[in-house]
Amino acid sequence: MNIPPYASPGMAPVTVPSPDETDLVVPFSAEEVLERCDILATHSSRIGAIERSYLTVEHSRTNWTVGEWMAQAGLEPWQDAAGNQRGSLAGPTDDAPVLLLASHLDTVPGAGRYDGILGTLMAIAVVGRLEAKGITLPFGVEVLGFADEEGTRFGRTLLGSCAVAGAWQDSWWELRDPQGISLRTAFEAFGLDPERIEDAALPREKVIGYLEAHIEQGPLLEDADRALGVVTGIMGARRFDLTMVGEAGHAGGMPYGRRRDALLGASELVSAIEELSRDNGAIGTVGRMQAYPGAANVIPGRADFSLDLRAETDELRDRVWDLIQEQADKIAAARNLSFEAIERHDAEATVVGDRLAQAIRTGIASTGDHEPLELLSKAGHDAMAIASLTDYAMLFIRCGGGISHHKDESVIVEDVALALDAFEAAVLDLARDFA
Amino acid sequence: MNIPPYASPGMAPVTVPSPDETDLVVPFSAEEVLERCDILATHSSRIGAIERSYLTVEHSRTNWTVGEWMAQAGLEPWQDAAGNQRGSLAGPTDDAPVLLLASHLDTVPGAGRYDGILGTLMAIAVVGRLEAKGITLPFGVEVLGFADEEGTRFGRTLLGSCAVAGAWQDSWWELRDPQGISLRTAFEAFGLDPERIEDAALPREKVIGYLEAHIEQGPLLEDADRALGVVTGIMGARRFDLTMVGEAGHAGGMPYGRRRDALLGASELVSAIEELSRDNGAIGTVGRMQAYPGAANVIPGRADFSLDLRAETDELRDRVWDLIQEQADKIAAARNLSFEAIERHDAEATVVGDRLAQAIRTGIASTGDHEPLELLSKAGHDAMAIASLTDYAMLFIRCGGGISHHKDESVIVEDVALALDAFEAAVLDLARDFA
Repeated sequence: MNIPPYASPGMAPVTVPSPDETDLVVPFSAEEVLERCDILATHSSRIGAIERSYLTVEHSRTNWTVGEWMAQAGLEPWQDAAGNQRGSLAGPTDDAPVLLLASHLDTVPGAGRYDGILGTLMAIAVVGRLEAKGITLPFGVEVLGFADEEGTRFGRTLLGSCAVAGAWQDSWWELRDPQGISLRTAFEAFGLDPERIEDAALPREKVIGYLEAHIEQGPLLEDADRALGVVTGIMGARRFDLTMVGEAGHAGGMPYGRRRDALLGASELVSAIEELSRDNGAIGTVGRMQAYPGAANVIPGRADFSLDLRAETDELRDRVWDLIQEQADKIAAARNLSFEAIERHDAEATVVGDRLAQAIRTGIASTGDHEPLELLSKAGHDAMAIASLTDYAMLFIRCGGGISHHKDESVIVEDVALALDAFEAAVLDLARDFA
Repeated sequence: MNIPPYASPGMAPVTVPSPDETDLVVPFSAEEVLERCDILATHSSRIGAIERSYLTVEHSRTNWTVGEWMAQAGLEPWQDAAGNQRGSLAGPTDDAPVLLLASHLDTVPGAGRYDGILGTLMAIAVVGRLEAKGITLPFGVEVLGFADEEGTRFGRTLLGSCAVAGAWQDSWWELRDPQGISLRTAFEAFGLDPERIEDAALPREKVIGYLEAHIEQGPLLEDADRALGVVTGIMGARRFDLTMVGEAGHAGGMPYGRRRDALLGASELVSAIEELSRDNGAIGTVGRMQAYPGAANVIPGRADFSLDLRAETDELRDRVWDLIQEQADKIAAARNLSFEAIERHDAEATVVGDRLAQAIRTGIASTGDHEPLELLSKAGHDAMAIASLTDYAMLFIRCGGGISHHKDESVIVEDVALALDAFEAAVLDLARDFA
């Protein structure tokens, strides 16, 4: 194997496997997949932490690296008009339909090394395994490494998969990153042509379906002592930018009765969001919070924070959002603040395609687990965006302690080996439909 | 008058008075003082807002400007070893004692234009008025424009006045600004020699006392319909950097029961700080708050925030801090978080010197208010640091709505005119002791 020394200014130390070590790793094995997760973890914009956002140099470097790996597996690699890294395996005929195997390559700030990455590299490995065995599939395969699932940079998730699903919105061009750079400008700086975004879309009639492998990002598989699970659907999520505005003032001089402390209002709402979400069976998370102007001796005149809200049904989620808004207005009125919410993201709950989910179940069964655990994904996935293009199904892999979006994200090599077997078996199960 | 065009990249538009306008302003009048507050407001590191921190280019530019104004008033200007801008008026003999007139020239982020600035420029104007009238004082006068009262950059307040009081601590050299620059490095970059810091200290035996004029930064004068007030003492303040540490995780996947959400703990504590402070008659303010890693779909693993705590007595303040700590530990235990507090600042409550306060009272009486309102300052002032060197007294000036540390800080020219008369009369009252 030829692994170039991917020197990265972002993260130290970069461990480049010695020729001896790499020679020991079997191509397309779980060990190789995990080694490659380690290599991609060095493509980071931060020292000592993993952060890889859309349309950055780290994104570009990752696409190049993954493209090399795609080529080694027999895929023809290319970067699409949205910056997704894709690789094609031709079908038996020019007009053969295509099965999509995919996940994402971007990360949140302070991420682990498996969320999205593992699924993308597993998809490449499964193609490599089939190729190595000389198996010819009755359809083409396309592996996709989506460029923006997390939405970290522009506040809108699933940009990469929406482009592929043909669901790109023109209004997104004016989304701005925290530095004020528009999505359009970032596209151009990355070498992409915004006018050609539609080239990334797949024609609906050509696609059989979509399979994605992903770490669970929750503790249920671990609790049930299972390595793998089959996803039944994905919770819808809405995300909001929330703001409380009051008035800055001197921390000593301004009496309590006259304060308009924006952070006190925001803090009260953060507590209320937990209570209202939990009591109603939804999941509400405030991930961002910053007080302004931000000096120890100044009463905050403004607090900016975020809300991520999910529930098993969209109806429940929307009802809880109404309750949260009501409470926010009450808090703001009581403290003489003004409250504002801007919706940044709204994804509907989706359910898997029966035939595809059956293939995943068959795949897991082939590893010895004949009644695989069924899981509703509380985390969002690219599959949500692809659901508007074609049916999807997902394979979940156990992760340590349910920890994700954290540097301590972990998987064990035995689970990844089972997952590769199951994912490969699922593809072969679908192939039988064409026999 | 010769006002150079102080072009500033920091704040637009910069209004440079035309020669016609400036010719109409009487030297050392309230109008001139306020015009100069407007000019210094343009020496900012931010566009459209006032922010002037210690050892920045704006600090340097301000010292230069104020030095010019000191020279116009008959003071000999110089910048001391701590970056304070000072001006001396010689006494009748070489060994004559010195009266200090001072306030500060730095600002908080998003500041108004009068906090500290007004008092410094009033001190210069009073010297100019006495000089213009040909009055010879029986003592020397030193006007000081302190370089760091707010502590915005290095998290430790009163650095400028502590240097003058001879209370500089060697440990401060390793204080760091948010960019990680140490106070020592910032000194050197500013052109100051850390080895010479003791040169800024005044010899105790040479000093008569210290007078400071300042806006009230609270609403009590306005409520009482008075322009001026005499300060009885200054509340002690303690400041802490607070941290809640939990564990970052996926906003969807991690069930409520297993979350270790640092922001939920911090928000609960912010609410508790308000309640405990208010119920016990103290003043607690959380001015800074930031959640990490800071993405909408990631449970915060850490929240950094600040606490500024004041009370009429140090005993009460310390008792409330004990209650807050107790509550913080409870919240952290209940949420499986760890709580840490680092004290950044601890100023004892101080009381004014009787003779000096009497001079301020006499000064205010000379403007027609024979029973001036007595006020305990809830805001900290350079006078707190100077209290270890010599007696102090303070003159408070009414400000609009009690608003301070905010761009809407305001004073009216009539009040400033009265304040100049009162401050001048206070100096002359002290002079009588030497007759």
